[in-house]
Amino acid sequence: MLGELLDNVRRRHPLVHNITNYVTVNDCANILLACGGSPIMADDAGEAEEITALCAGLNINIGTLNARTIPAMLAAGKKANQLGRPVVLDPVGAGASRLRTDTALGLLDQVRFAVVRGNISEIKTLALGSGSTRGVDAGVGDAVTKESLEEAVRFAKDFARKTGAVAAITGAIDIVAGGERAFCIFNGHPMMSRVTGTGCQLSAMTAAYVAASPDRPLEAAAAAVCAMGVCGEIAHRRLGELDGNASYRNYIIDAAYHLDGETLERCANYEIL
Amino acid sequence: MLGELLDNVRRRHPLVHNITNYVTVNDCANILLACGGSPIMADDAGEAEEITALCAGLNINIGTLNARTIPAMLAAGKKANQLGRPVVLDPVGAGASRLRTDTALGLLDQVRFAVVRGNISEIKTLALGSGSTRGVDAGVGDAVTKESLEEAVRFAKDFARKTGAVAAITGAIDIVAGGERAFCIFNGHPMMSRVTGTGCQLSAMTAAYVAASPDRPLEAAAAAVCAMGVCGEIAHRRLGELDGNASYRNYIIDAAYHLDGETLERCANYEIL
Amino acid sequence: MLGELLDNVRRRHPLVHNITNYVTVNDCANILLACGGSPIMADDAGEAEEITALCAGLNINIGTLNARTIPAMLAAGKKANQLGRPVVLDPVGAGASRLRTDTALGLLDQVRFAVVRGNISEIKTLALGSGSTRGVDAGVGDAVTKESLEEAVRFAKDFARKTGAVAAITGAIDIVAGGERAFCIFNGHPMMSRVTGTGCQLSAMTAAYVAASPDRPLEAAAAAVCAMGVCGEIAHRRLGELDGNASYRNYIIDAAYHLDGETLERCANYEIL
Repeated sequence: MLGELLDNVRRRHPLVHNITNYVTVNDCANILLACGGSPIMADDAGEAEEITALCAGLNINIGTLNARTIPAMLAAGKKANQLGRPVVLDPVGAGASRLRTDTALGLLDQVRFAVVRGNISEIKTLALGSGSTRGVDAGVGDAVTKESLEEAVRFAKDFARKTGAVAAITGAIDIVAGGERAFCIFNGHPMMSRVTGTGCQLSAMTAAYVAASPDRPLEAAAAAVCAMGVCGEIAHRRLGELDGNASYRNYIIDAAYHLDGETLERCANYEIL
Repeated sequence: MLGELLDNVRRRHPLVHNITNYVTVNDCANILLACGGSPIMADDAGEAEEITALCAGLNINIGTLNARTIPAMLAAGKKANQLGRPVVLDPVGAGASRLRTDTALGLLDQVRFAVVRGNISEIKTLALGSGSTRGVDAGVGDAVTKESLEEAVRFAKDFARKTGAVAAITGAIDIVAGGERAFCIFNGHPMMSRVTGTGCQLSAMTAAYVAASPDRPLEAAAAAVCAMGVCGEIAHRRLGELDGNASYRNYIIDAAYHLDGETLERCANYEIL
Repeated sequence: MLGELLDNVRRRHPLVHNITNYVTVNDCANILLACGGSPIMADDAGEAEEITALCAGLNINIGTLNARTIPAMLAAGKKANQLGRPVVLDPVGAGASRLRTDTALGLLDQVRFAVVRGNISEIKTLALGSGSTRGVDAGVGDAVTKESLEEAVRFAKDFARKTGAVAAITGAIDIVAGGERAFCIFNGHPMMSRVTGTGCQLSAMTAAYVAASPDRPLEAAAAAVCAMGVCGEIAHRRLGELDGNASYRNYIIDAAYHLDGETLERCANYEIL
């Protein structure tokens, strides 16, 4: 089933509008091209809505947030909602500063997201802080392990129900949850955390997957998360003795370039809870 | 002849001021270093003129345009004109938003460009929209093919005559045209479109080529376009089975690092119309 | 001794706040991850102090300086001083524009830096221009060679005494000087200058080294400079016939990923003057 969602990206070439940080933006653009999508970056409030209107999906990432781009994020998000185009939020560093937390919560209040993708601590910050999500059980721990998996799944489903967005919580084990159903995904490799922006890349790719299959956001997000994990595994097997995190970065994107639906289907390692 | 223009870059090491987008800026810097030039990036209006004054050429790219950098683009462009230094415009996404179209047209009105490099749809937007270029025949199609080549060449020469800039229109076939003469260039590889920023890199490199041979902007721009295409071909031959667009990006820049005048001469594939 | 300082980074995983340019920021993040540190980028005045407060060190780089980020640099620098966290300054392009020179001097006046890392001409600009450093002998030449080494060391020590910061002056020969003692470092490879941002990467890595060993800023900075040079050498030996500056960039970061204290100890090539 997941393979079909990848194939949709390769067939429909969704154009994705990214308002994202300047640290990992180049890798986001290249992984979008790798997976079959097409990137456009535009963060000025003076053009954000127009660019969104051209696109099949929108990816908002607050990694190097600044006062100038917040209005662009809001305007683009609302425009995408108006046009029925899926929006992904990557709340990078929510919880690390009031600006990030408030901005992420403000976005969550004013924009309807198809998917929110972050690590457990970022999603917990949103769950605790948001008016609309207050009361969500955020007693879940700071890492998702086999032991805490059930609790984390409950938390993710709760978050999804309260926000209406698919919760994509990535870490050693990834959880992609709607209100009723969750994918627990065991793909990926720990070394991915030694490459800057694998999370940002995944968010961009998730926007492409959901944009290509807008009626199936849960499955599309799960497919994107599996795909990124499988790419991390393929790339890791390719590492030579002298290769480090820079070559690994390239190999992950290279793997995304070659990944097909059949391989994704075969290598995806998940349970549905 | 083209080889000589490459050799001029290697001999003169032109310093190029780039006001460019944050998506592909790192690759622009590395390809400038690869080809023998030297990059400096500075986009604050408070220093744009001073930095331009230090440089042999200026490259303006509107890829992630914002209100803050537009005055810097104008100021730098005018200063370069005043000092007789060549300026390249890359009107990324002109036509996609009013902000981009208006900014590109404003630049074209207020700054004298040595070269405008874009895809056919961007250049058509400029041709149709600009006061100074109104009336240009922009009935040309949205892709340059063998069939539409003659028409596209006519359009490019017309654009060059009206604007005084060399028109470098890149795509499956590239056209580099002055008012009277056009290079139709058949180098390159379709996979280059799967790497973000090969166009931006070419614009930066074009600025270096023209800065190193300021009295021959048409030939210098044609040499840069051929060089980029030849690098795309060399890099493509180098691709292994597992290599995708990330490795291809690196191999293109690596090829630019090694390209010499003799190889460019031998591999350049063009006709003059 | 230097190996121990590298090992401290790998053991303590210092989180480093970077306010840096958008050209080389991705490489700075990846080399921080490679060496065992952890990067966070945040340049809005609305969150700069909070982010600094979370971090073990701060790296300020004025490479694409703009009016918006200067207040963030000052606020973050002062907060780091208040909390006793080391701050590194990379005065990219000081001397090239009044904005850069004034900003670098303003930072030097208002923030206490653990290390200032730049090339000889940038450091000379600071030495000549700063009120607090006026009178420093900046008659030193524009490149550090075997012949001018003693004079340059005297200049560097003088700069260190006047500013209270370790002076890390990099070039063909690197000098890392406190007021009394200087490391003259002979590692590195000339081709490193053909990769954009090796200096920026070194500054980021220096912040990690000093953050991991805050009581030994001189030795920590010297270890970082040696480590970068050794990585440049290892990476250069790895270059194949077709590899150019893009592959070299990756190999340098890869080498940083694998470098251990023992190798650094064995390969570091320096004298203490």
